[in-house]
Amino acid sequence: MALIVQKFGGSSVANAERVMNVARIVTDTYKEGNDVVVVVSAQGDTTDDLIDKAKEINPTASKREMDMLLASGEQISIALLAMAIEKLGYPVCSLLGWQAGFSTNSVYGSARIKKVNAERIKLEIGKKNIVIVAGFQGLNKYDDITTLGRGGSDTSAVAIAASMHADRCQIFTDVEGVYTADPRKVKGAQKLNEITYDEMLELATLGAQVLNNRSVEMAKKYNVTLEVLSSLVRAPGTIVKEVTTMEKMLVRGVTKDTDVARISIIGVPNVPGIAYKIFGKLAAKNINVDIILQSVGRGDTKDITFTVAKAHGEEAVEILKNLDLVAGLDVVCDTEVAKVSVVGAGMETHPAVASTMFEALFEADINIQMIATSEIKISVLIDAKDADKAVEYVHNAFIPVIS
Amino acid sequence: MALIVQKFGGSSVANAERVMNVARIVTDTYKEGNDVVVVVSAQGDTTDDLIDKAKEINPTASKREMDMLLASGEQISIALLAMAIEKLGYPVCSLLGWQAGFSTNSVYGSARIKKVNAERIKLEIGKKNIVIVAGFQGLNKYDDITTLGRGGSDTSAVAIAASMHADRCQIFTDVEGVYTADPRKVKGAQKLNEITYDEMLELATLGAQVLNNRSVEMAKKYNVTLEVLSSLVRAPGTIVKEVTTMEKMLVRGVTKDTDVARISIIGVPNVPGIAYKIFGKLAAKNINVDIILQSVGRGDTKDITFTVAKAHGEEAVEILKNLDLVAGLDVVCDTEVAKVSVVGAGMETHPAVASTMFEALFEADINIQMIATSEIKISVLIDAKDADKAVEYVHNAFIPVIS
Repeated sequence: MALIVQKFGGSSVANAERVMNVARIVTDTYKEGNDVVVVVSAQGDTTDDLIDKAKEINPTASKREMDMLLASGEQISIALLAMAIEKLGYPVCSLLGWQAGFSTNSVYGSARIKKVNAERIKLEIGKKNIVIVAGFQGLNKYDDITTLGRGGSDTSAVAIAASMHADRCQIFTDVEGVYTADPRKVKGAQKLNEITYDEMLELATLGAQVLNNRSVEMAKKYNVTLEVLSSLVRAPGTIVKEVTTMEKMLVRGVTKDTDVARISIIGVPNVPGIAYKIFGKLAAKNINVDIILQSVGRGDTKDITFTVAKAHGEEAVEILKNLDLVAGLDVVCDTEVAKVSVVGAGMETHPAVASTMFEALFEADINIQMIATSEIKISVLIDAKDADKAVEYVHNAFIPVIS
Repeated sequence: MALIVQKFGGSSVANAERVMNVARIVTDTYKEGNDVVVVVSAQGDTTDDLIDKAKEINPTASKREMDMLLASGEQISIALLAMAIEKLGYPVCSLLGWQAGFSTNSVYGSARIKKVNAERIKLEIGKKNIVIVAGFQGLNKYDDITTLGRGGSDTSAVAIAASMHADRCQIFTDVEGVYTADPRKVKGAQKLNEITYDEMLELATLGAQVLNNRSVEMAKKYNVTLEVLSSLVRAPGTIVKEVTTMEKMLVRGVTKDTDVARISIIGVPNVPGIAYKIFGKLAAKNINVDIILQSVGRGDTKDITFTVAKAHGEEAVEILKNLDLVAGLDVVCDTEVAKVSVVGAGMETHPAVASTMFEALFEADINIQMIATSEIKISVLIDAKDADKAVEYVHNAFIPVIS
């Protein structure tokens, strides 16, 4: 007998039929003799519908009232899932975030979990109930409802698993696990059986969109074993844990991210402190800078190039143009770029990874604009139009194609 | 400066435009220097939509989970109304039933309020906030969400008014107050300026459908001054209080109720204990019996006739047929009947009321099937097809027609 935490996203409970499907997965797990705690998000488009209702009345409503509004979405889905489980004849109890013991800070809209007091959950499990918990929500010290922000239900699930020392935290999605590349795009993309937290973090950051980053960080911190698996296909998924042993694959995955804008400042004075002044200004405006490349100064000028999220491209250009140091210089913003990355924990001790990647891009006749490396990844910036081709060539260079 | 509790029903907040209208009523009251606590129901058809969602998954879902589901409706409406008030530039804070201090018993679906601990409401009023409270909901001793049943938001409003000793509890509806008869049907129906709790109770029971009965009982018990008024027309409504002084009208109103079935048992043995056995059995099955008429026994049999709500008609007949005493006797159920009543506190000391009513029905050529009287009302049972005509004739016999 084990304690299993299962999390289902909004698309998994989008309608009555899917709610029943989830109820069957949950009760099958319970039937095997496990204690089961289930975390659910709001159904399908509920959250977006509620946001539309709010905007019609007040587009600048306070975040406190937005959280009050949005938290109703999960309240609906936990009750419906509990009813579906009752229909299958199993004992069940739904709990709101605050009933399940979620204390958060007071940053409405993106609150951080401070503590999960799992007393009530334990009480219900003691009564042999399947426990359904509203994800995404908690209570601050003023007894006001807070929400955790996008992807918050993943974090809710991991937090419960951590506080209850669950044997496993299963994150059900619409894919069967974590793949070496997007299986809809790359022939031969393979499902990974295992992956480390750090690798998963890199893959998430790089646009794999399987797991919310905060939840992976929390899982790593509290050593919660995650499993990413499908709510539609009954098959083992991908296990995320500290150390993986079974697989020898050096590269875990190849990702692309097209939400990138490349900004170049041409002919910046070659004097000390310039990078600090530029990037300090952007940081002050909450603009995250990713890859940075600075040309070797020739004479008294140099060029600085960096990437930001597409949505921040124009704003960054405006900020730079208002900077004394940059005034009058050419500031170019290119949004037709993509970042392609290979991720794998063993990479740092294998210099051949970088050369294999570059060779694959050369064979694909793709020009590399920028390169960035870390201990477990190599990213290149290329033309957006080449992105899919690049992923395919790089993927095939690393991952054996099974056809 | 006064403390005013205002309650708005589901149709008053059915869409964005109506929510803004309510926000204007509330902020106008606040602007005059009053402290304002607002109780809101779920928007328009939200509750029915949620019930449909539940039925699709499990038509026999537990009441605990139904309450969890339904309570989300008011959560949405309080947040939206708070946002509308923010938009008008006033300080506001929405509270769920449990945040507002509503403790109830554990009868899910129709819980009774045990206590309102108004500490949090007082705290928010102390900060000069307009306070918006979710009606219809509370928390039981297990920390589980309960709902108060149909019309529960009226009761929520009165409970807050009682616990905070509010100066007035305004119940906003889609009519301008309590009328002497249904103004859509009876020409010359007049709005009453004042009415007593007891009169209001009789009118509510008799189908006037303006105020929930439980809320009037609670208002009477705690001496809360109610006002029934329109959320669409800005005009004084009807004040409901212990003693009215201003009006001399003997009869406060004429109502009809077509939700009635008349059941007759013909030829019951004329022995002691028969009424106890019949009505005890019906009470055990939670069937409320209204008017009872027993013929004077002739020889060894008598006839017993009584009325129940239409929905209970067939069930009552079945129960009776299975009763030894009744076995083999004729049990007749007629659903084509209506109850027409006149209500007024001074009635008991004015025997002319009954004769005036009967004369009016005679003039309208309407046959009276049954008669029942209490201290403040006289009801007659007639053919359903005659109901509107009866109301008109009786109303005109008592209330001067202003044309």
